[in-house]
Amino acid sequence: MQFTSEQRLDGGVLEREFTLGEIPGILWTPGSASAPPAPAPLILVGHPGGLHKMYPRLVARARGAAAEGFAAATIELPGSGDRPRSAAAEQARADLHRALEAGESVDDGIIDRLVLPLVETAVPEWRAALDALLSLPEIGGPVGYSGGVIAVGIRLAAVEPRVSAALLFAGSFVPRTMFEEARQVTIPLQVLLQWDDEGNDRQLALDLFDAFGSKEKTLHANMGGHTGVPQFEGEAGNRFFARHLK
Amino acid sequence: MQFTSEQRLDGGVLEREFTLGEIPGILWTPGSASAPPAPAPLILVGHPGGLHKMYPRLVARARGAAAEGFAAATIELPGSGDRPRSAAAEQARADLHRALEAGESVDDGIIDRLVLPLVETAVPEWRAALDALLSLPEIGGPVGYSGGVIAVGIRLAAVEPRVSAALLFAGSFVPRTMFEEARQVTIPLQVLLQWDDEGNDRQLALDLFDAFGSKEKTLHANMGGHTGVPQFEGEAGNRFFARHLK
Repeated sequence: MQFTSEQRLDGGVLEREFTLGEIPGILWTPGSASAPPAPAPLILVGHPGGLHKMYPRLVARARGAAAEGFAAATIELPGSGDRPRSAAAEQARADLHRALEAGESVDDGIIDRLVLPLVETAVPEWRAALDALLSLPEIGGPVGYSGGVIAVGIRLAAVEPRVSAALLFAGSFVPRTMFEEARQVTIPLQVLLQWDDEGNDRQLALDLFDAFGSKEKTLHANMGGHTGVPQFEGEAGNRFFARHLK
Repeated sequence: MQFTSEQRLDGGVLEREFTLGEIPGILWTPGSASAPPAPAPLILVGHPGGLHKMYPRLVARARGAAAEGFAAATIELPGSGDRPRSAAAEQARADLHRALEAGESVDDGIIDRLVLPLVETAVPEWRAALDALLSLPEIGGPVGYSGGVIAVGIRLAAVEPRVSAALLFAGSFVPRTMFEEARQVTIPLQVLLQWDDEGNDRQLALDLFDAFGSKEKTLHANMGGHTGVPQFEGEAGNRFFARHLK
């Protein structure tokens, strides 16, 4: 992991851009220049891809996490932002948009072609990022995963023992084969659902919540569409992680 | 309203038992003997009936509310605790238990016989209690309703303009005719659902959440049975009321 830039945000959060091989990422750590922080628990900040476009929302989440004493980090998804596109994924995305615009139900095959390769590539990358981040003296663990793409979060929660709690946004498509992986997830979960999400099937999201194997799992369903997650859920998420990462 | 006893709990909360005509109730107000509190917002603490049996849970909820600066009050439900029984309600309750024990689906007629007369009697009583409570100098409003019986909360939220937010526990039967009343509710809601509630139909609870007319409504679904609401939902409830009653 190579740090490529560094700035101190107002409030004292240190923001550092890095690259992990070809993958760009951002790390935020709490504290101030005069008082370097104790090793902090880490929240992996998931997103739908496109670090530049997502930056305002990502930094807001990182600031909220830092206010609770958490470090936060994110990396670019394969095929997004400045990373090379995959022709197959672009085709699947085009097929998805065509189906949604035509008001058709989305074929399972499209979801599989779009999401499964993403999960296969992204999850090892997040795990490699975790190796690098946990080797920093300012990061102490434990580790939480927060956000979407939910299929990435499911796989990561199922296979990565260092992730000990996850806040998942049930706002994107999940291949049906991944419901079996959801049953293998046993860590504490908080799942966000937007009740009127345009591009997401409410019943499938409820079925997915039901499928998770975790003994402690909480569903927070709010009104509105995909981008309408209420601001108070940020605070609720921090409280969830405070219960499980401290 | 006649106060019949008074004690100062540790932590400074003043607990007073009262009677409103024949109806017993309890009022908790925050503050200490040396510093009487400013007029406080009020949370009406709903419950399934039986003040004595419910007291430990009620006082815990009242203490949590008082810690946030809220007064809290509750009254006994008709036909519960020391109040006279209704033969018809007792019969409906017996029929309900028989159906549940036999593993049968519960007939709508039983629910109607059990819940509708309760709502008809209880809601005017809660409103009369509200008249009396809001006339006290230490209670300033605004007012929230918290808990079950959810059918009582629905009717109260639909007809009582002084109730400005409600935290409802979707843990008891709701007559189908009350779904129409739910559509008329427009105040901010937080709805608790126990995912594996033995005596409650999950799909009906989700349908009820969907039916509420409120623009701001949040569902918190947690694992476990009827009595397994996690402790952290107490804090989440206080934060909901802090957003809407302050």
